Amino acid sequence: MVSVTDTRGNTSLKMLNFKGFIFDLDGCIFRGDRPIPGARETLDAIRARGIRLLFLTNNSTGTPQQYSEKLAAMGIRASTDEILTSAVATAAYMHQMERGGAFIVGEKALETAVEGEGFTILGENRATEAKYVVCGLDREVTYEKLKAASLALERGARFIASNADPSLPTEEGYLPGAGAIISALVATTKIKPEIVGKPSRRIMKIALRRLGLKAEEVVIVGDVLETDIKAGKNSGVHTVLVLTGVTKREQLIASNIQPDLTLDSVADIMKLI
Amino acid sequence: MVSVTDTRGNTSLKMLNFKGFIFDLDGCIFRGDRPIPGARETLDAIRARGIRLLFLTNNSTGTPQQYSEKLAAMGIRASTDEILTSAVATAAYMHQMERGGAFIVGEKALETAVEGEGFTILGENRATEAKYVVCGLDREVTYEKLKAASLALERGARFIASNADPSLPTEEGYLPGAGAIISALVATTKIKPEIVGKPSRRIMKIALRRLGLKAEEVVIVGDVLETDIKAGKNSGVHTVLVLTGVTKREQLIASNIQPDLTLDSVADIMKLI
Repeated sequence: MVSVTDTRGNTSLKMLNFKGFIFDLDGCIFRGDRPIPGARETLDAIRARGIRLLFLTNNSTGTPQQYSEKLAAMGIRASTDEILTSAVATAAYMHQMERGGAFIVGEKALETAVEGEGFTILGENRATEAKYVVCGLDREVTYEKLKAASLALERGARFIASNADPSLPTEEGYLPGAGAIISALVATTKIKPEIVGKPSRRIMKIALRRLGLKAEEVVIVGDVLETDIKAGKNSGVHTVLVLTGVTKREQLIASNIQPDLTLDSVADIMKLI
Repeated sequence: MVSVTDTRGNTSLKMLNFKGFIFDLDGCIFRGDRPIPGARETLDAIRARGIRLLFLTNNSTGTPQQYSEKLAAMGIRASTDEILTSAVATAAYMHQMERGGAFIVGEKALETAVEGEGFTILGENRATEAKYVVCGLDREVTYEKLKAASLALERGARFIASNADPSLPTEEGYLPGAGAIISALVATTKIKPEIVGKPSRRIMKIALRRLGLKAEEVVIVGDVLETDIKAGKNSGVHTVLVLTGVTKREQLIASNIQPDLTLDSVADIMKLI
């Protein structure tokens, strides 16, 4: 057990105690298509100590298989069971719900996950029959889809969202995220969704179940205060912020969301375990 | 001068004093494609007394010419100068601004109005050059348009919205309105638009200028508390709510926006002038 001082000068976390690590992907393990230097070695060291791993992303547009391949191309091995996307988590969240028609505002990976759980995917022309409207990032969203989703919600469909990230950081700039699409539907219908992704406890519960660990045995490592760190805070999981993604030190200082520990990069974890 | 008691039992307005009437269109003069019974006779009576008239709609998807023709088909004459749409008002609002490129998330009537004011309409591929992003209802909105608008706003384009009605009442149900599209852009960029349409004082200033009258000489008649009545309150114009549109008596009682007078229909104005 080691006690370390975080980047703001606070004493902090006892890393060696953790039985499980939850890692965010974009901004933490890789950035776009480039791995964060040292990420692979850190993950290898964690595995070598017998600590369990889970990769947790709010992105609903990739499948675990696609992420597994992306990581493999960076020399990082991860089984599909170790990758929990918000799309897969949404399907898991819907597991206990009565089966029926679902209208999806989202991409193929979300549709596949919900359909795989036994729900019937409805087209726009049958959206008003939907028992569920499931919303995630949809880079092919149209007025017709927003209209169909709104009418389904007004007729009583249950509103479930894979995640609510308002924007998507890319090389071009910040693009509309799932949260932007949700905002349009909320504005129209005044109905708010059940959000599955980080910072919700819903996805954390699913993540902990998959790890087979209790909240206090686990740490979440990520680059976004409002999703990764808040998810830990909301669920009793320890939190490590890395500065390789969207959060800059100035934002951290100004924020009311404070991680247990801040590190320059995921590579610094190696020194602590 | 007559003093009347409104539908909630309050004593009220001195109708004869008004030199100008501003009428909302949908829900007030017509409902969808059907005129409100008595609307034509009321408008004729107002004209016969030499009182000035203006029709004011937050809808940015029709041109004054189209509205003039629609009204004519119902036996109601209205010159294009007497019809102020939020699209035309947006162009008027932009009159003092430096000319340059505008990226429009909106329909043809909005584009035509802004272009008519001397601005250059840019396509999606040139949106990042835009000096202005002008947003209204766009029933052909796509992710690509939202993305282009977001990137233009992030690069400093001025954000102007014709109106912010969150939903559009239709026979099918409530469809996404301009406000829903704006919500998506605000979620993505955290930048809020300058809203021209009701309840903004901006459109009321333009309306009063067109009537050539002062606020206290004018009454606005409409069916929506949050737009028509609030516009009057925000600008010092007297207010009459009609119950032929979206507002039900229960909503009126529960609202913190209270008109000077409530009438069952625009037809009741005849008894008061």
